[in-house]
Amino acid sequence: MSAVKRVYRFEEGNCDMGTLLGGKGANLAEMTRLGLPIPPGFTLTTEVCRAFHQAGGQLTDDIFAEICAALKVLETSKQTFFGDEDNPLLVSVRSGSVSSMPGMMDTILNLGLNDFTIQGLAKQTGNEGFAYDCYRRFIQMFGEIVLGIPALHFDKHLEQLKEQKGRENDQEVTAEEWKQLVLRYHWLVEEQSGKAFPQDVYVQLRMAVCAVLRSWNNTRAKVYRKLYQIPDEQGTAVNVQAMVFGNKGDNCGTGVLFTRNPSSGAKELYGEYLINAQGEDVVAGVRTPRSLSELGEEMPEVYAELSRVAGQLEQHYRDMQDVEFTVENGKLFLLQTRSGKRTAQAAVNIAVALVEEGLITKQEAVSRIEAGHLDQLLHRSIEGPEGLRVIAAGLPASPGAATGAVVLDADTAEEWAKAGTRTILVSSETSPEDIHGILAAEGVLTSRGGMTSHAAVVARGMGKPCICGCDGLAIDREQGTITLGEHTLRQGDVISLDGTSGQVYLGSVSLSDPVVSPGLLKLLQYADEFRELSIYTNADTPADAAKAREWGAEGIGLCRTEHMFFSDTRLPIVQAMILAETKEERIHQLGKILPMQQSDFEEMFRVMHGLPVTIRLLDPPLHEFLPNLEQIVEQYRAAVAEGSDKEEVQRLKRLMAKVRSLQESNPMLGLRGCRLGLMFPEIYDMQIEAIFRAAATVVRERLEVRPEIMIPLVGHPDELKAMRALVDEVASQVLSEEMKHFKYRVGTMIEVPRAAIVADAIAEHADFFSFGTNDLTQMTFGYSRDDAEGKFLNGYLEKRVLQDNPFQVLDEEGVGVLIQWAVDKGKARKFFLKTGLCGEHGGDMRSISFCQQIGLDYVSCSPYRIPYARISAAKAALIWPRRKQAFASLPEESPSL
Amino acid sequence: MSAVKRVYRFEEGNCDMGTLLGGKGANLAEMTRLGLPIPPGFTLTTEVCRAFHQAGGQLTDDIFAEICAALKVLETSKQTFFGDEDNPLLVSVRSGSVSSMPGMMDTILNLGLNDFTIQGLAKQTGNEGFAYDCYRRFIQMFGEIVLGIPALHFDKHLEQLKEQKGRENDQEVTAEEWKQLVLRYHWLVEEQSGKAFPQDVYVQLRMAVCAVLRSWNNTRAKVYRKLYQIPDEQGTAVNVQAMVFGNKGDNCGTGVLFTRNPSSGAKELYGEYLINAQGEDVVAGVRTPRSLSELGEEMPEVYAELSRVAGQLEQHYRDMQDVEFTVENGKLFLLQTRSGKRTAQAAVNIAVALVEEGLITKQEAVSRIEAGHLDQLLHRSIEGPEGLRVIAAGLPASPGAATGAVVLDADTAEEWAKAGTRTILVSSETSPEDIHGILAAEGVLTSRGGMTSHAAVVARGMGKPCICGCDGLAIDREQGTITLGEHTLRQGDVISLDGTSGQVYLGSVSLSDPVVSPGLLKLLQYADEFRELSIYTNADTPADAAKAREWGAEGIGLCRTEHMFFSDTRLPIVQAMILAETKEERIHQLGKILPMQQSDFEEMFRVMHGLPVTIRLLDPPLHEFLPNLEQIVEQYRAAVAEGSDKEEVQRLKRLMAKVRSLQESNPMLGLRGCRLGLMFPEIYDMQIEAIFRAAATVVRERLEVRPEIMIPLVGHPDELKAMRALVDEVASQVLSEEMKHFKYRVGTMIEVPRAAIVADAIAEHADFFSFGTNDLTQMTFGYSRDDAEGKFLNGYLEKRVLQDNPFQVLDEEGVGVLIQWAVDKGKARKFFLKTGLCGEHGGDMRSISFCQQIGLDYVSCSPYRIPYARISAAKAALIWPRRKQAFASLPEESPSL
Repeated sequence: MSAVKRVYRFEEGNCDMGTLLGGKGANLAEMTRLGLPIPPGFTLTTEVCRAFHQAGGQLTDDIFAEICAALKVLETSKQTFFGDEDNPLLVSVRSGSVSSMPGMMDTILNLGLNDFTIQGLAKQTGNEGFAYDCYRRFIQMFGEIVLGIPALHFDKHLEQLKEQKGRENDQEVTAEEWKQLVLRYHWLVEEQSGKAFPQDVYVQLRMAVCAVLRSWNNTRAKVYRKLYQIPDEQGTAVNVQAMVFGNKGDNCGTGVLFTRNPSSGAKELYGEYLINAQGEDVVAGVRTPRSLSELGEEMPEVYAELSRVAGQLEQHYRDMQDVEFTVENGKLFLLQTRSGKRTAQAAVNIAVALVEEGLITKQEAVSRIEAGHLDQLLHRSIEGPEGLRVIAAGLPASPGAATGAVVLDADTAEEWAKAGTRTILVSSETSPEDIHGILAAEGVLTSRGGMTSHAAVVARGMGKPCICGCDGLAIDREQGTITLGEHTLRQGDVISLDGTSGQVYLGSVSLSDPVVSPGLLKLLQYADEFRELSIYTNADTPADAAKAREWGAEGIGLCRTEHMFFSDTRLPIVQAMILAETKEERIHQLGKILPMQQSDFEEMFRVMHGLPVTIRLLDPPLHEFLPNLEQIVEQYRAAVAEGSDKEEVQRLKRLMAKVRSLQESNPMLGLRGCRLGLMFPEIYDMQIEAIFRAAATVVRERLEVRPEIMIPLVGHPDELKAMRALVDEVASQVLSEEMKHFKYRVGTMIEVPRAAIVADAIAEHADFFSFGTNDLTQMTFGYSRDDAEGKFLNGYLEKRVLQDNPFQVLDEEGVGVLIQWAVDKGKARKFFLKTGLCGEHGGDMRSISFCQQIGLDYVSCSPYRIPYARISAAKAALIWPRRKQAFASLPEESPSL
Repeated sequence: MSAVKRVYRFEEGNCDMGTLLGGKGANLAEMTRLGLPIPPGFTLTTEVCRAFHQAGGQLTDDIFAEICAALKVLETSKQTFFGDEDNPLLVSVRSGSVSSMPGMMDTILNLGLNDFTIQGLAKQTGNEGFAYDCYRRFIQMFGEIVLGIPALHFDKHLEQLKEQKGRENDQEVTAEEWKQLVLRYHWLVEEQSGKAFPQDVYVQLRMAVCAVLRSWNNTRAKVYRKLYQIPDEQGTAVNVQAMVFGNKGDNCGTGVLFTRNPSSGAKELYGEYLINAQGEDVVAGVRTPRSLSELGEEMPEVYAELSRVAGQLEQHYRDMQDVEFTVENGKLFLLQTRSGKRTAQAAVNIAVALVEEGLITKQEAVSRIEAGHLDQLLHRSIEGPEGLRVIAAGLPASPGAATGAVVLDADTAEEWAKAGTRTILVSSETSPEDIHGILAAEGVLTSRGGMTSHAAVVARGMGKPCICGCDGLAIDREQGTITLGEHTLRQGDVISLDGTSGQVYLGSVSLSDPVVSPGLLKLLQYADEFRELSIYTNADTPADAAKAREWGAEGIGLCRTEHMFFSDTRLPIVQAMILAETKEERIHQLGKILPMQQSDFEEMFRVMHGLPVTIRLLDPPLHEFLPNLEQIVEQYRAAVAEGSDKEEVQRLKRLMAKVRSLQESNPMLGLRGCRLGLMFPEIYDMQIEAIFRAAATVVRERLEVRPEIMIPLVGHPDELKAMRALVDEVASQVLSEEMKHFKYRVGTMIEVPRAAIVADAIAEHADFFSFGTNDLTQMTFGYSRDDAEGKFLNGYLEKRVLQDNPFQVLDEEGVGVLIQWAVDKGKARKFFLKTGLCGEHGGDMRSISFCQQIGLDYVSCSPYRIPYARISAAKAALIWPRRKQAFASLPEESPSL
């Protein structure tokens, strides 16, 4: 016999022993120690499970001897005896894993019954019907789980019996009839398994324990573990516990109790119960359970006891509990307690209430909020989706819900939106030219693309629901129809999206708005007490900026000026600028764009007065602003064929040539970012002038402006040096003309791997680094996001070559190392260097944690993610606290001024 | 007066003081110390130049006082006196920079002449004509250089005078006439400069010194410095030296001597001279100089003295010298010595000869060979290009020369080559589908693309000349004609390319073949004695491999299997494989490719028996093997329009859909490399089987095979882990079937930045790392090579944001840091990890140096670059010697076996 203790009586354990005893076993032990009414029992440790599987599915004799020893103690405490004909001890054998795996493994009740002990049970209870009902249930459970006999065989016999005897339901079956069923079941077991049903209760026990241990490796448990990343080595514990019966009569029952309302979080007993029933009856759904509030009238003492116990458990566990109980002959027994699952709203309200009740600290309240809860809270959702008809499904690319009329292109979406119609933009995929359509629509549905496709990224940024890669969607643009599963719809037909689940519904649905409830508001206030990272927002429009400020943004971390280029009135001018054949012509066109950009920036500065506004100069390759080549070739051909006038044909030919000349093999790695600024300084020149003129105007309104100019795609210090010189030159010219003076910063996005490597040299010319983790991830991995999503990233995730999509969760081992390196080298060179992150990762909890750990000053996320980011940052700060960064206490100042 | 010594007499310096005294000054000092006949003088240090420019172009009085003091010493030694009417000292004032900047700065001769000292000079020499000739030359030089009077004014007066007097050339002009000219020059100077010509010789000296110092910042000097990256702070020294005259009469003269033949390297005096002339007469080209060999007859004593001096200088400087000399009244004076410029052939032959003469060590011989020399030696060149007609020019993308008939597509090139016609492939640009055409052609000429375009890279790899981005080239495919400058040519017309200069010639030219001369062979042998890096080759065909082995390759570092996929017979099968709609169909098609690949590999193993052969599994995105989309759309439209049969239309439609589905936004970062291997393991499976079957076959022939299988584009350790498992599995299956056993290695290309970052984890699954610096550079910089070359890289180089094209010279600060990191982390994890580099940088001297410094085991370059790489590696090892890496002494063994 091994020296290791492998069987713990409930009296010997406690709730900190979950790794050894499983969650259920540890809590049963804890409740026993608290003196709560727990049927006695013991737990086989997870060690037993590991040993069992290592031995190829064998339970060794020495372990079984330990089990029998613990059983002896149980007999003594219950004063009933295992296998005793007069006073038999019956037990349940249940799995109890370390991580919650609800319903994944097996349970056997009423073990210890055989043709002899059944007499004792009948005598003990004076209820032969109850006894044989127990027996037939036990044989069926044992037959199914231990012997592997399909349930339908047992069900068939029960049905036959009830039919023969004319019984409508199980309650009507008599003791004699149950006896007959038991006989039939005996035959059935022998016929199906080739052996008689075991009458030796120790054989029953050993077989049952083995079966429960085996169930650790059944298919559904393995799939579940893979899904939730539970290690195979964790193993399950097994709990053997004296049976209590909720089905002995009308002063018996069974139920489930939540110590608070798991939907709303309200402080009230919540749950349901059945009189004269065993737990499995609740699950089977044969009878409808009653609300726990009724129990107060039916069994007032039990209800009072339950209230007392609920309070005691909450005080002890310092959280809302989910409790299983059984009432046997008017006496309450608890069979399980655990932290109760709850909705996002309840999670927030309970956490805040527990703080106010003095049970937990604010830190604990913040730490308990999960990423998923915040996701739910911050988007609209479909009310009661259960009854609705799902017609197709795709990837849940951006959470939230929407209802609207199908439109097939961005222009229509915009037009209809102006006319007051809510729309859903349906497309094979989207491109930057569709931005106005996405902005106008309530939600986006695409047939292609993945979680990080253009549509997904933009929709998430705007906080709109989006479903991507919807297989069931086919679009016939010529006919103006779409097929969704079996349904053919026309433009204007109404559908609804649930971007959180990826499901598409036919027709309209009722939506519930996200609200910052008083509870959430309090929680955010708690979070802000602990948070060390500043939370900025990515916002391209004053409306977004205003919303972000409302949600608590402390600055704009990324304002993409190119999004301002796509509006209807501006695009033609932008195109003329690009098509300009001389620098003079380009400057002329830029002169027309200047006042437009300036007014955008003015509004931005007004909305964000007093807070930093980080403006990124033009980044995308120029061809993104031109029509696509195939279209133009088409138009050109048509014009030639139709004999259009010469000038038009010439114009199209020139356009075609220009678009061709701007085409790139790998546009992501081509002429964009500061490369544009170096090759066409007049473009950046115009943007810088617009920024400073706007800032001067707003300063004149006695508002404080804090512009931070961000140079994109720097890979070499001399790029930033040249661009910084341009900014400083234009700034000093404009500011002296405007006769205004204010401070500004000039910095760069670190998004090219080389920039991270030479960060010390770059820091010499930078006031801040903003990590553009979208591009940095693309280049560090060598993944083009658009291509990877559709072609291999899902395969990689399925094969587990990658654990997470690196565009959603920051890759700490690769990209993270570069970031850390850059922060360390940058701050070593310039201690007041401000550092932040402005990729999509700024809205992901794990990535925010990483930012906290490596000492960034801020993260920037889309407006809708701000509450999420505030809480995530607080959670991270509670785990990895650090001193405030030096820069925070320094004056806002550009060293260049 | 400052404590720093700023004026050095020649007796006070030596040849190690080049930084302070400039090259010329340091060598004049050295030769003075050697006792050679040097006119006395002194040197103003480069400090003076820096101080002069820092003071805004002022020569301070204390410096001038130092100059005057040195002048006094000079007077004493010459026993002539500055400004003396009877016995005047005349001096030259010459610039002498640290780095050679021939002709970039100014020189003034005969300084010290005025209306009084001229009398003394006439008396001294008894030659009034000579004296006034000197005077008029001095006034003109002084006028031009110091006073900035345009030369044409002086020339006009001289012409007028000669015309008036009926003089054909300068020699005929009489003393009296020179006197008249001097008078006219005096008027001219006063008229042009507003001041009389300075009669005070000290004023002359001060003004002349200032003018020479100013010339450091003249435009042509600044441009030259920028071009050759000479720092502006270096400054120039100024040499003031007593004049000697080669133009006093027929026992006088001036000339240039090379101590060996600078063309061939033969040990013979080589040079030219003029009797009765000053140095500037040689430059002016008015008289034709005579070959130095004639001097032996004309002035036998001087010639003998010159031979002796040449020997002494070579012994002393241990290198071939380029010497300027003047003979004054039969007496030899040396005015300058420096290492002589030489052709590549001469450089090699001289280095080897000097070793054999015991003057230098083998190490020195190797160290002296420059990258440019090797470039010249290893390619064919045009014989006597001076007389030929250049009709267009482009970028010198791949060195060497070729003559051939114009062909406009790859198929024609191949067809004509088979028929025995030499061709030049002329195209707007090339793609991988054109490989067979490039292979068949003698050279490539493209209108688009840069130094690293497809055509350039492939041509360099094949050692064929290539000119890219030829602006003067226009192609009319429909007409089958090209326009080159003003010439319109048809397919079949002959042109010639000089890929070293980028020039295109009309018609055929004579070519001289590269030869491994006996000299080069010796030098390579020396190099191999010191070299520590192994030199592998990038070779895709047995023919290339054989050539590489001949040139000294010690293994194949990169065999790109996809190049085997492009041949006419195979491409259709490869396409069928890609278009397969089921895995079974794909496997079926792969089955047809297997024997073809196997036979390629067999031949490869035979050629390289005993040496490692690194085979990279399929790397490029699949769409590279399919026709391009525009073509297919065209075909499909045509088929529909013509009412072709349904099956064909369907086939085209399917093809179109497939090509569309394989299209990627950024193919470089898409589905390629090991991503293909993970998504379609059957492709790699086939390739691995072909490798091992081929190896087994060759082993059976009693040859030694050393396959090394390289997995491309790994970014995550689990990718390599999975692919290594596949290799090991297929290998063990094939080897057991073939009943053969041999060792192999499995490794990866490090070409994704992330791979370098997590190199330790990757090393666990790798036997070797091969740095794919082409892609690593692309991703680290975020540059798509194809796009960058055409769009901004040249701009970056022009603006000096980048110092070098990172695709030609490895970027040590960025990419190099990643490589170093990966080597360090990889070897720390696995000390016998073999490391090498197989990008284009393997053929670049600076990059090879870097490989030596960071401890790589080998570099792999194209076959034609091997001699270059052997010498480069030896040069690097001499500067940065290290112990041999651990792996070299380990058995060749795959740890997996």
